[in-house]
Amino acid sequence: MTVTEDVGAQPVRVNLLFNGRPVRVPSGVTLFDAASWNGIAIDSTCGGHGTCKKCRIRIVPNSDDPPAPTSLDIRAYTAAEIKDGWRLACRTIATRDVAVEVPPLTTRPKAATVGVGRQVILRPAVQKRYLELAEPSLADQASDAERVLAQLEDLEPRTELAVLKTLGRTLREADYKVTAVVVDDVLIAVEPGDTTGRRFGIAFDLGTTTVVATLLDLSTGTPVAVESMLNKQQPFGADVITRISATMMDPGALDKLQQLAQETLAELARAVCAHGGVQPDEVYEVAVAGNATMTHLVLGIDPEPLGMAPFIMSTRLFPEVLAADVGLAGAVHPRSRAVVFPAFGAYVGGDITAGLLASGMDRDARVRLFVDIGTNCEIVLGNREWLLATAAPAGPAFEGAAIKCGMRAADGAIEVVTMTPGELSLKVIGDAEPQGLCGSGLVDAVTGLVRLGLLDASGRFIPEEEAAARAPGLAGRLTRIGQERVFVLHWRGPEKSAPEDSIYLSQRDVRELQFAKAAIATGWQILLEEAGLTAADVKQVLLAGSFGSYLSAASAIRIGLVPKIPVPRVVAAGNVAGEGAKMALLSLRERAGGLALLEEVRYVELSDRADFNDRFVEQLPFPGG
Amino acid sequence: MTVTEDVGAQPVRVNLLFNGRPVRVPSGVTLFDAASWNGIAIDSTCGGHGTCKKCRIRIVPNSDDPPAPTSLDIRAYTAAEIKDGWRLACRTIATRDVAVEVPPLTTRPKAATVGVGRQVILRPAVQKRYLELAEPSLADQASDAERVLAQLEDLEPRTELAVLKTLGRTLREADYKVTAVVVDDVLIAVEPGDTTGRRFGIAFDLGTTTVVATLLDLSTGTPVAVESMLNKQQPFGADVITRISATMMDPGALDKLQQLAQETLAELARAVCAHGGVQPDEVYEVAVAGNATMTHLVLGIDPEPLGMAPFIMSTRLFPEVLAADVGLAGAVHPRSRAVVFPAFGAYVGGDITAGLLASGMDRDARVRLFVDIGTNCEIVLGNREWLLATAAPAGPAFEGAAIKCGMRAADGAIEVVTMTPGELSLKVIGDAEPQGLCGSGLVDAVTGLVRLGLLDASGRFIPEEEAAARAPGLAGRLTRIGQERVFVLHWRGPEKSAPEDSIYLSQRDVRELQFAKAAIATGWQILLEEAGLTAADVKQVLLAGSFGSYLSAASAIRIGLVPKIPVPRVVAAGNVAGEGAKMALLSLRERAGGLALLEEVRYVELSDRADFNDRFVEQLPFPGG
Repeated sequence: MTVTEDVGAQPVRVNLLFNGRPVRVPSGVTLFDAASWNGIAIDSTCGGHGTCKKCRIRIVPNSDDPPAPTSLDIRAYTAAEIKDGWRLACRTIATRDVAVEVPPLTTRPKAATVGVGRQVILRPAVQKRYLELAEPSLADQASDAERVLAQLEDLEPRTELAVLKTLGRTLREADYKVTAVVVDDVLIAVEPGDTTGRRFGIAFDLGTTTVVATLLDLSTGTPVAVESMLNKQQPFGADVITRISATMMDPGALDKLQQLAQETLAELARAVCAHGGVQPDEVYEVAVAGNATMTHLVLGIDPEPLGMAPFIMSTRLFPEVLAADVGLAGAVHPRSRAVVFPAFGAYVGGDITAGLLASGMDRDARVRLFVDIGTNCEIVLGNREWLLATAAPAGPAFEGAAIKCGMRAADGAIEVVTMTPGELSLKVIGDAEPQGLCGSGLVDAVTGLVRLGLLDASGRFIPEEEAAARAPGLAGRLTRIGQERVFVLHWRGPEKSAPEDSIYLSQRDVRELQFAKAAIATGWQILLEEAGLTAADVKQVLLAGSFGSYLSAASAIRIGLVPKIPVPRVVAAGNVAGEGAKMALLSLRERAGGLALLEEVRYVELSDRADFNDRFVEQLPFPGG
Repeated sequence: MTVTEDVGAQPVRVNLLFNGRPVRVPSGVTLFDAASWNGIAIDSTCGGHGTCKKCRIRIVPNSDDPPAPTSLDIRAYTAAEIKDGWRLACRTIATRDVAVEVPPLTTRPKAATVGVGRQVILRPAVQKRYLELAEPSLADQASDAERVLAQLEDLEPRTELAVLKTLGRTLREADYKVTAVVVDDVLIAVEPGDTTGRRFGIAFDLGTTTVVATLLDLSTGTPVAVESMLNKQQPFGADVITRISATMMDPGALDKLQQLAQETLAELARAVCAHGGVQPDEVYEVAVAGNATMTHLVLGIDPEPLGMAPFIMSTRLFPEVLAADVGLAGAVHPRSRAVVFPAFGAYVGGDITAGLLASGMDRDARVRLFVDIGTNCEIVLGNREWLLATAAPAGPAFEGAAIKCGMRAADGAIEVVTMTPGELSLKVIGDAEPQGLCGSGLVDAVTGLVRLGLLDASGRFIPEEEAAARAPGLAGRLTRIGQERVFVLHWRGPEKSAPEDSIYLSQRDVRELQFAKAAIATGWQILLEEAGLTAADVKQVLLAGSFGSYLSAASAIRIGLVPKIPVPRVVAAGNVAGEGAKMALLSLRERAGGLALLEEVRYVELSDRADFNDRFVEQLPFPGG
């Protein structure tokens, strides 16, 4: 899995020139975001929220028709400055080509660009303080703990029993020159000497399929190493339901599943530390973003009530959790903390909370639609005023399961299918011999067939003779295996193989995709209705997760998976869950923002809606045009 | 060790009649205290602090000269009521004989008499709440934790990961009828069904020598079972210094000492539960009062800095501690909390904090002297306005060590020695054949010899021929073993044994006692000077601990161990450390009071005082008269 920070996968419309460096960004973003998405630092202490007035930029004088000043610009600048082109980058919308001068950085706070172009001011929970303490005497019998805490008065940390056990010896052996390690409000360690230069955290995206770990230098915000691997729970089944079922059948399964998830995290932690040249003891905090089932399982919480109506979580918020509680006892500092992202509902989990944080859904004025496509598809609609969330049961089609020639997006998977009446071309992951079709290839293939008219709006293949007329170059690909009609995407071997040996798309595969996309479309349709809006009101669609990164925006629109809006407004947001986890480690403020989301989001349950089935059937056909 | 709750061992001065029941109490106590010390319940929600105005009593009309109304009485009652004899019991001081009517109880709060006659309103940290929860539905998808917490809104507890692990199953198996167990601010358990009738705690007095456990019913405040045993650390040495030294010599000793202390607590916990018919899972909180070394060791905190100047504790206050942290994992509820009493200094430990709480040192208007006699003697002087504390190195004489025929206060120990010129009589613990002399017997013997003039004021035995003249009935007892002069207390066997085979007091033993009592007297003398007071200002001396219970007040005064004040004002306070631990379990308010003591007590270090040695020498002789 690649961490996608670049939302310019479909860069169009606006050409910007930052200090002479050209970048292309979607129309409608702020110059602040446009700069930070492209790694250009602009002064800011508020992170682009219009409060610090430090993100000064100048529209170069020969730009024709410079952006109009906003009311904040008028307060921040003199009339002469405004005439001279000075603007606040976070308030200036890129709607046309413009050249911009960015002054050299002057402000001290360090920031990092994380998430979907989020500029995060570094304020990690992990803090270090080098202390040179006065030695005790008969005239100064303050306890060792008091001696340390007096120097940390502004942080007011609690102490831990484990720190006290060795504190006396540490102070005396280190000659009272020590470094205090405070995580949030807890003094978790006192280390000999000055270790203030070394503090790290690990952000985990704990997926049902894939788990990603990013080792972060908390002093700079820089990712030091990234590793991913399959979740070791895989043998228990591909999706969360099979894993929950396992715990219901076998009393030992919960322990086993917990252990496997924990081993996955520990192995990744050891790998990123080894690659990054970081000692396990230098990792003082981890963040874990996962769906509700993964989170329950890794913490050893009985997931059974998640698995059946009315789909109840044991908890939305988690109490104080240690890294040891998620199996990292030996892999990071023994008293390292863990931030576990809370869930909105049984099927809108902590991964979505993290994703919303990373994509700034709660801070953007525009109405945006966030869609994380998978077996369970999470959908969030809203802006900074309101947010609605739901989960749609899309089924495993996008994971390649239940599709005859389907496979996960791994080497050998057809990820892009391009069709004209005259020819068909494939793009295969790893440039290998095609082995099967992954979700994005499936969507592309169906889209192409619909566009060429080989599939009708109801999703049925047209008669073979009509197909030959419409797309002469694809003749022979539309055929049958037994009774079932199939479309061959790739014949194996030098000779055209028999259809059953080829990589093909079957009529039933098309139906699977229709069911999946209808479920998702029903989800966002209902959210739009709840909000009193229509598809046209959606200003941006964020496709989250690895599948979203591979999916062609045009195809997604063409088959009705997302609302019909201009293609450039459909943006692959990448691994937003992992990005949210990174943000939580880098900034206590962002972490609090993630928690606050729980109050801001209203969860809409689909499974008890009387109208769900009717709407689902309505969404099955492919949109016309 | 006996838990002494009765301070009326020397009841004098005032005769009271509560609803016809006569009691005798020291002059100067309030009628509220006088009643509660004698087990007579009076309505109160504030526990006798003049705030609730519920402790209504009536001085019976034919009492002559009834106590004058206080300003609070005037606010609480009409003039007619006051004329009729109505008073607030907590404000009315018993200075003369009086008869009192106590109305039947009307208020709900339960109270218990604990400590040195302290009436404690029950408000334990352990609370139980029976909940009948609404079953979740698609229309009500609140998480299991939210469902429980909504019913505990007034308590605002945190949850624990361990509770969440099984919460889903518990709720469903118990049909959503459960009992929440909240300790202070933490939800530690959710139990199926209604278990509100069962909640227990264990108060530990963790002594260097003896450990006492009291199982308390937290619903009623009643002790259910009491057990004591020797601290299993004994093989490492009798006093704290030898145990600290062990950890300095042997890197494995700290672990071993921790384990032994923990095993002691666990064995006692199992014993009191077995005797009380209580399941370990029904014990949700424990309290531990011990000196600084014992507390450090049982928690596994390196005690080395306690053992040498400048005598530094790792910490005065303890962080959140679980019963499991003191070795009670299997012996009480697995998530049971532990209250560990904080220490004022390396040698004025948590046992003294508990003792001061139990004796109400910080709430009494009278200047009182608290003395806990042992190898290390803790001394506290003060009243509700100010408190001074110190520790005096008394040495092991009172423990029977360093005394030729000394022994601990166990079966066979001579605990009382009564002497006249004509005869000598002994009281032996367990009514057994005398085996040796314990601390109280030692003090009695020396006192008797001083009073009869057989020891002169400097502590030297007078010539044998003079002795025979002064105390003819004791002739032959004052003799020699080799060069050393000895006084035989008990000849073994039917024939008078040789002096070396008898139980005797040697000249060197007398010196040991002089050193010990001089160290203690120097301690309280210095505190008196710091306070600008003299011995005559001390209104009460509280002798804490088991030794204090055995010691004769008259003897203690006679040899100058305590200030020269009227004998009835020297009170054996009993096992006040254990009583303080009980109070902490029964009342969060009292527990907070114990913590507040840390701020109220000023610690006076003796070992760096230039004048200590001179003063010590001054205190060596026995007082005249």
